[in-house]
Amino acid sequence: MYSQLQKCIAEAVGTALLLATIIGSGIMGETLSENNVAIALLGNTIPTGTILIVLITLFGPISGAHFNPVVSFVFWIRKEIEMRMLYLFIIAQIIGGIVGVLIAHAMFDLEIIQVSTKVRNGPSQWFSEIIATFGLIIVILGTIKTRPSFVPIAVGLYITAAYWFTASTSFANPAVTIARSLSDTFAGITPVNILFFIIAQIIGALIGAYYYKWQFEPSE
Amino acid sequence: MYSQLQKCIAEAVGTALLLATIIGSGIMGETLSENNVAIALLGNTIPTGTILIVLITLFGPISGAHFNPVVSFVFWIRKEIEMRMLYLFIIAQIIGGIVGVLIAHAMFDLEIIQVSTKVRNGPSQWFSEIIATFGLIIVILGTIKTRPSFVPIAVGLYITAAYWFTASTSFANPAVTIARSLSDTFAGITPVNILFFIIAQIIGALIGAYYYKWQFEPSE
Amino acid sequence: MYSQLQKCIAEAVGTALLLATIIGSGIMGETLSENNVAIALLGNTIPTGTILIVLITLFGPISGAHFNPVVSFVFWIRKEIEMRMLYLFIIAQIIGGIVGVLIAHAMFDLEIIQVSTKVRNGPSQWFSEIIATFGLIIVILGTIKTRPSFVPIAVGLYITAAYWFTASTSFANPAVTIARSLSDTFAGITPVNILFFIIAQIIGALIGAYYYKWQFEPSE
Amino acid sequence: MYSQLQKCIAEAVGTALLLATIIGSGIMGETLSENNVAIALLGNTIPTGTILIVLITLFGPISGAHFNPVVSFVFWIRKEIEMRMLYLFIIAQIIGGIVGVLIAHAMFDLEIIQVSTKVRNGPSQWFSEIIATFGLIIVILGTIKTRPSFVPIAVGLYITAAYWFTASTSFANPAVTIARSLSDTFAGITPVNILFFIIAQIIGALIGAYYYKWQFEPSE
Repeated sequence: MYSQLQKCIAEAVGTALLLATIIGSGIMGETLSENNVAIALLGNTIPTGTILIVLITLFGPISGAHFNPVVSFVFWIRKEIEMRMLYLFIIAQIIGGIVGVLIAHAMFDLEIIQVSTKVRNGPSQWFSEIIATFGLIIVILGTIKTRPSFVPIAVGLYITAAYWFTASTSFANPAVTIARSLSDTFAGITPVNILFFIIAQIIGALIGAYYYKWQFEPSE
Repeated sequence: MYSQLQKCIAEAVGTALLLATIIGSGIMGETLSENNVAIALLGNTIPTGTILIVLITLFGPISGAHFNPVVSFVFWIRKEIEMRMLYLFIIAQIIGGIVGVLIAHAMFDLEIIQVSTKVRNGPSQWFSEIIATFGLIIVILGTIKTRPSFVPIAVGLYITAAYWFTASTSFANPAVTIARSLSDTFAGITPVNILFFIIAQIIGALIGAYYYKWQFEPSE
Repeated sequence: MYSQLQKCIAEAVGTALLLATIIGSGIMGETLSENNVAIALLGNTIPTGTILIVLITLFGPISGAHFNPVVSFVFWIRKEIEMRMLYLFIIAQIIGGIVGVLIAHAMFDLEIIQVSTKVRNGPSQWFSEIIATFGLIIVILGTIKTRPSFVPIAVGLYITAAYWFTASTSFANPAVTIARSLSDTFAGITPVNILFFIIAQIIGALIGAYYYKWQFEPSE
Repeated sequence: MYSQLQKCIAEAVGTALLLATIIGSGIMGETLSENNVAIALLGNTIPTGTILIVLITLFGPISGAHFNPVVSFVFWIRKEIEMRMLYLFIIAQIIGGIVGVLIAHAMFDLEIIQVSTKVRNGPSQWFSEIIATFGLIIVILGTIKTRPSFVPIAVGLYITAAYWFTASTSFANPAVTIARSLSDTFAGITPVNILFFIIAQIIGALIGAYYYKWQFEPSE
């Protein structure tokens, strides 16, 4: 059984994330529709959400389908993968991410090698990444515990929301951040902004992992 | 077994809600696309729907994932939670909601403390809230009874529809209403309009709870 | 076991419906985006699809959740409901539908009683309704047979597609057709066009029911 | 158990497809929203994705619901259908596809017989088709192996993503390609461009089938 405090904090954190989404996505939607790119973000969000559901379902039984160094890092902290595997996964994720960017450029007949000039900087962006990664980690660990068959859908739907409720459109993933710095297109990020994004993602992941441990461990 | 009357009323109420959605969302879509903010509401709706599915799946096993004082209130009426827990949950939901709004402002680099100036007033708005909350309560209680694993998806999809088929975009939640009064952005509501919204939500919830009791209790 | 002919026809009919959707929704999307109402139809489609999933899940265990006279009619042909129940359901659906329209008008502060002036007429509209209702009936009967827990989702997703791939935006339902004639808004239909819509829906439903019987009955 | 190499490649391929989607759909969204047809593609994508989920659920238990000659071809390579059935299925799929296009034209009151003039040509288009078909085949074979009840949803969600992340909007299907050449509308392709599309689709399918065999076969 969960304690009364755990229950109340669950209600508070859940309502906080709900309101952050309602207000955040409202701000994002209004701002972007003034600039006429809201539809572009929608066209970016829906495929990202759906492919995540598909890919996690597909590769989950093989490797766990992390696709994300901070997710692998959290599983290592939790002693669910070994350090050797952590290193290998991070390398595989970074290489895979970069190859994916090159494939996208080739499909759209763009310069294969690019460097992004899109500035994504400042405390509000970093705070967005902390929140986004915190949410991602508790969604993954929480649904693994309470409803494992739902993990792929939960992650896909969470990222669908997080694209809109955070000011950074939720990178929440160091391999994705590095790879996106190599594309001077809609979803890019200039290389000098990578470091603080990754630091924010690690902070968010750690907070998520420790919060999860307290929140989801029945105490009575 | 359900009585013939229960079956016929089920067909009538279901068809009524279906038509309210078809006509209501058509009006909303046409009006908003003239004002060029339809895409903003879509960008507000999809994340809210998806995050609800995720959050209810995640926190449901801990606290029930009400995130909504009138939902907790209905569970208290139905003697499924104690009064002490009702108070604590309502406090947690209101605090959580406000914190979520502040987080959204911080992520988007806006003034943290705001007061909404968006007027949402008048009988048609209140009637919208009665219908929205009535629907929410029967969806929650009904799916808990007939298909509990589907509750998170049912609530997320219901709110997705309700954002469009009601003139108020379906607050249906006193904690959400209070929290949204603290954001002078797309999803806000000016504080003086809170009271009647909450009264309408309580009325809708009570009608929903009593209707549920009659409709879903096999009578033969 | 299904015969070789049944398998080949299944592949042919499935591919035909897939292409009708790809081409039809492409035409609809292009036409509407020129007129700047594509987003209004999207805002009409998504709530209709999601509320159908919710309502069928909710009321299915009580009444079957037909919400549609031709669906009840098909169940009567198939001897799954009695004639008396058929009459009562049709009356309940028509009354419910009309009440739903009035509720929508009240929520949006419009004239409660309206008559639509929107012309939806001509052979291509009627042919659209035949195809739409044919598809709806085989989706309902087929998923009831092969995967009953999926019926609500299948109907919701089918109507989501059918709003876009038919020129009539898929009424496929006499109660909905009658009710929509009482709203002079986006989703309306002028009363003089009701009769041929309903005839087309009955034809589509009958073709669907007989095709289902041949296609889904294992023959070996 | 899967080998360490299989796990690392799973992480790399998954992350590559994720990034191809993030970057590709971002490019597509930005380009199309400048040309004001992003909403048309969204109105084309959502119905295609949802109807696929419905049709595969519906016809899967009868014929396997391939609707796609390269999918049937892969099942023949894998000795899951006989050559005679392969021929019959391909004929049924091509005829069905063409009939579906004619039905769409009739519904929208257009010239029934058309020939597309839409040029879809060049290496980046063919590369898009290789990637799209590769992905489709591994999604089908992989989910059949690891989570068969999820196949219809996986295919529908995959195509939803692939419409946006490939420059060709993912035909990934020779019967669809042939049929779409007979429609001079949004989704068309001029007949002279068919051949290379089909060659690319066969190449993608073969790579997918052989990659699947290595990736999903436990090696320890």
